[in-house]
Amino acid sequence: MPTPLPTFHDVLAAAARIAPHAHATPVLRSRVLDELAGCHLHFKAEPLQRAGAFKFRGACNAVWALEAEQAGRGVVTHSSGNHGAALALAAKTRGIPCHVVVPEGANAAKLANIARYGATLHPCAPTIAARESLAAEVQQRTGATLIHPYTHHDVIAGQGTAALELLNANGPLSALFTPVGGGGLISGTAITAAAVAPGCRVFGAEPEGAADTARSLAAGERQVDFIPDTICDGLRGTLGERNFQILRAHRVDVFTVSDADTLSAMRWLWQCLKLLVEPSSAIALAALLQQRARFAGQHVGIVLSGGNVDVDALPWGNA
Amino acid sequence: MPTPLPTFHDVLAAAARIAPHAHATPVLRSRVLDELAGCHLHFKAEPLQRAGAFKFRGACNAVWALEAEQAGRGVVTHSSGNHGAALALAAKTRGIPCHVVVPEGANAAKLANIARYGATLHPCAPTIAARESLAAEVQQRTGATLIHPYTHHDVIAGQGTAALELLNANGPLSALFTPVGGGGLISGTAITAAAVAPGCRVFGAEPEGAADTARSLAAGERQVDFIPDTICDGLRGTLGERNFQILRAHRVDVFTVSDADTLSAMRWLWQCLKLLVEPSSAIALAALLQQRARFAGQHVGIVLSGGNVDVDALPWGNA
Repeated sequence: MPTPLPTFHDVLAAAARIAPHAHATPVLRSRVLDELAGCHLHFKAEPLQRAGAFKFRGACNAVWALEAEQAGRGVVTHSSGNHGAALALAAKTRGIPCHVVVPEGANAAKLANIARYGATLHPCAPTIAARESLAAEVQQRTGATLIHPYTHHDVIAGQGTAALELLNANGPLSALFTPVGGGGLISGTAITAAAVAPGCRVFGAEPEGAADTARSLAAGERQVDFIPDTICDGLRGTLGERNFQILRAHRVDVFTVSDADTLSAMRWLWQCLKLLVEPSSAIALAALLQQRARFAGQHVGIVLSGGNVDVDALPWGNA
Repeated sequence: MPTPLPTFHDVLAAAARIAPHAHATPVLRSRVLDELAGCHLHFKAEPLQRAGAFKFRGACNAVWALEAEQAGRGVVTHSSGNHGAALALAAKTRGIPCHVVVPEGANAAKLANIARYGATLHPCAPTIAARESLAAEVQQRTGATLIHPYTHHDVIAGQGTAALELLNANGPLSALFTPVGGGGLISGTAITAAAVAPGCRVFGAEPEGAADTARSLAAGERQVDFIPDTICDGLRGTLGERNFQILRAHRVDVFTVSDADTLSAMRWLWQCLKLLVEPSSAIALAALLQQRARFAGQHVGIVLSGGNVDVDALPWGNA
């Protein structure tokens, strides 16, 4: 029998479990961006989450859901960055070991975060196969529990808490946009929206250069054979099987966005919200801006997923 | 008889007057920055204020304090940027005309803000004399009221509301740091701290290349003869006479900071707070970091004054 998919009950349990550790991030508004978009935008500011991204929600939920004995053997994951840092910090909040398998060439700011929170880094070749095999090896050697970045039951439930806070903080929204990489955030969002705001449709935003989710939903089966090519380093993962099932069940639509449009949206967000939003987050605003006519005058939520920009790559990085 | 200086009563009146228009901005914390500084930092996030800086508080207070007939003739000011944008937006909230005299070569992002809010721009040469004479000319021609960026009574009182919110939001602080340009923010801060938190000392942070305030306080009289040389474009103004009196009365100390230290602090703020803080704001953290030993273990407030960075100057600005 297949493992059951996460439910809204799991999201509520996650919200209670992570409350002592995670921030309830603010919802930001901008009149200038509302004018630009022709609708009322409500930005959930997850760059202000601990470790700089929504990923802490899922990681924290997974870490604190472990039984004490199992937790004591630690946790392990493979992650291009934000989930690794989030799991490292979550493990630190519980005082347990954390191992993170990181692909060579990953974003330096994200690697620094992981190290700062005290996890052990295990470098590997930048392929899914290399990551998974090294993670399995570490797991066998240490007895650590594998916390997959986006297919893990408790991770998906934890990610749903961002939408829960956003929908509770606002009046009714007619749509909710999130980025899509492996599908953890949007799966949790879809489960939550269906339960607390059935009139609110959930949309994903995916880079043209990693559009496996849009193609998978169109084809009716997962399309896993692609080489990602996008500046959105947080969205290069492949949609998970369980995530695919959840998106189909909730009739989630996904828009694809060029990197140029994503960068343009990022510039607007920096300028108007004064928030250091990473490209993998700005893509959600870019998708909405592509669909201005469809959402004209409506109230739309956008989950700004993270802010782990490599600050040292900016002009004043060498100061 | 000289005009009386603003009092805490004026700050309280300002708080009530601007409440319908201004944001009560959040206070942000960062464990990483606390470790770096060796104390407990409380950041008042004025980049999230309307028009992107604390300047909206003073401008809004001044605009709404005008009698109806006088207000109808509009307002005028000279400003390198943030005060101009703030006054333009404040005038827009009251539906009155606004004229802004801007020095050639001013920060493009700030000029765009002023224009966006519907003010009339009047370019002039980048000297104090040229600004003041053109502002006087516009004032004569239109009957508009001059709202000086930092010596105006209601502007100083309005700027004090940021510290009021910060001190009310937190437990006791032993010190409060703000940047110093013309002295509007730190004057309002000093008046407020003296009234609501007499144990809390107020410190200013000033660029080495525009250190007229530190020199004025040391000499016991205003030192106005200098040519500013700093990347902190919001701090190039000359300390006002009334501001000087207030700082002396409240025994405010001012630290001078190199641009390199300011940029380093800015990088930390971007990385840890995910907030787009401009150099003229980051200088306050830089000053605190210079004084680590003195404030070790204490609770310290820092007013991050604004976030109007010229985003188009960043690498992805051309995307």
